[in-house]
Amino acid sequence: MLLMAYNLFRDDIEKALPAAFAIEIFHNFSLVHDDIMDEAPLRRGKPTVHVKYNTNTGILSGDVMLIYAYKYLMKIENQSRISDLVRLFNEVAVEVCEGQQYDMNFEAQNEVSISAYLKMIELKTAVLLAGAMKMGAMIANAPEDDAQLVYDFAKNVGIAFQLQDDILDTFGDPQKFGKRVGGDIIQNKKTYLVLRAFELADQSTKTQLENLFANQPENESSKIDDVKSIFNQLDIRNEAEQVKEAFLQKAFAALNAVGVAEDKKVVLRNLADELMNRQV
Amino acid sequence: MLLMAYNLFRDDIEKALPAAFAIEIFHNFSLVHDDIMDEAPLRRGKPTVHVKYNTNTGILSGDVMLIYAYKYLMKIENQSRISDLVRLFNEVAVEVCEGQQYDMNFEAQNEVSISAYLKMIELKTAVLLAGAMKMGAMIANAPEDDAQLVYDFAKNVGIAFQLQDDILDTFGDPQKFGKRVGGDIIQNKKTYLVLRAFELADQSTKTQLENLFANQPENESSKIDDVKSIFNQLDIRNEAEQVKEAFLQKAFAALNAVGVAEDKKVVLRNLADELMNRQV
Repeated sequence: MLLMAYNLFRDDIEKALPAAFAIEIFHNFSLVHDDIMDEAPLRRGKPTVHVKYNTNTGILSGDVMLIYAYKYLMKIENQSRISDLVRLFNEVAVEVCEGQQYDMNFEAQNEVSISAYLKMIELKTAVLLAGAMKMGAMIANAPEDDAQLVYDFAKNVGIAFQLQDDILDTFGDPQKFGKRVGGDIIQNKKTYLVLRAFELADQSTKTQLENLFANQPENESSKIDDVKSIFNQLDIRNEAEQVKEAFLQKAFAALNAVGVAEDKKVVLRNLADELMNRQV
Repeated sequence: MLLMAYNLFRDDIEKALPAAFAIEIFHNFSLVHDDIMDEAPLRRGKPTVHVKYNTNTGILSGDVMLIYAYKYLMKIENQSRISDLVRLFNEVAVEVCEGQQYDMNFEAQNEVSISAYLKMIELKTAVLLAGAMKMGAMIANAPEDDAQLVYDFAKNVGIAFQLQDDILDTFGDPQKFGKRVGGDIIQNKKTYLVLRAFELADQSTKTQLENLFANQPENESSKIDDVKSIFNQLDIRNEAEQVKEAFLQKAFAALNAVGVAEDKKVVLRNLADELMNRQV
């Protein structure tokens, strides 16, 4: 996406590759450390680093990956922008860590507001897309306003993407969805769907939901069915789709305002559409 | 030490403060993560971060501290040197992590050569001092040759410092040494003293040493006495002092060659002497 953003303004995308490598290795650093914190056994269908090697190797190789992100970033030829690029990268990197901290805090909290949830997914997921794309625009020497619009496009696509993730996990087609549909419900994850359901539910439905999320049931499928049935009563899927759509429209409004020819923007508009219509 | 290096060339040391903050917070990041890896309960007499909070907080706040090191570094006013500073910082940061990995590897290895040990303490301890002081010189716009001499001074002081650490841990004055004398021996740490003793020992003494380090004895004091007695037979303290002295002389030779007035160098020469004559 960093290269696509660069490509809005310039064609010689190889000039932006070192920064794209920096974002990619930063993203993977965050996965290695997050997988330790979340005690995740698998990533992309393979054992996580701390499981395959050990936790110390996971911590230390993650640290080195974070430093390597800066090493790649410093390889950008456009030296006049290096300081601004590193500063933006620093902001984004801290925000991603803050997002992970919020995510962990939420697991232990009883009450999470929807605005806090949206802020968490913005920090944990969306700002990295946004920062990456803004960096692409900056390396291409895009005007400051355009670089900011590209940032806004990506940030709102990122939030919509994460809401789509929540929707698919519960309402995805089991034939097409890669993971087990209902995984978030089984794990009692505080997704947008759950938080909105608690907002809309009357007292007796709220009690039902609380009971469903209070314990790990013998029969997981019936827990999924019961929660989905409440979601359906409250029209939660539609609620989530509407919020997602609102973020997507903000994204497109930002993209529309970028000062480059329409044909340059098609690939980004198609990408956003594909991300929203994905089945997995 | 970064500020002292800057002060060799310029008086307005506040100009170098952001880089000094960067080094300080980087150093503390490495301690937070190392303490997790080493399962250390105490640091500077207080509970370590992962013990006081939890391991996840230790990992994540360490990550943010590493990013903050870059944030401080970017605040340096001397913008013409920013790229070179970040590149040097990147090199040093990776080397410090490599030093930690070697240190952990050595614990699990039977055979460690003295040259590998010296390389490990160079990476784990000395390059951070060296990089910090070179950064101070660079921010002061010192000539490239002088900046490199300052680096060499600090690197060799750092190695000598670590050898002094090994000597004090075994031969320090119990009245003055802050920790228990002999701690390294009890922990079977592969210090310079132990590695050199294995090099110099005849077969029967080697077997004695192997037996002493093979198990955790009931009586720790007698283990310390027995190992020290072998060290004394082999004149190990003198061996270590000589190697330390050689690194110290290399350090002073580099400092002598720096192209600034003698009176500017006094503070660094005194610092090195104090570090070598310390009792704790």
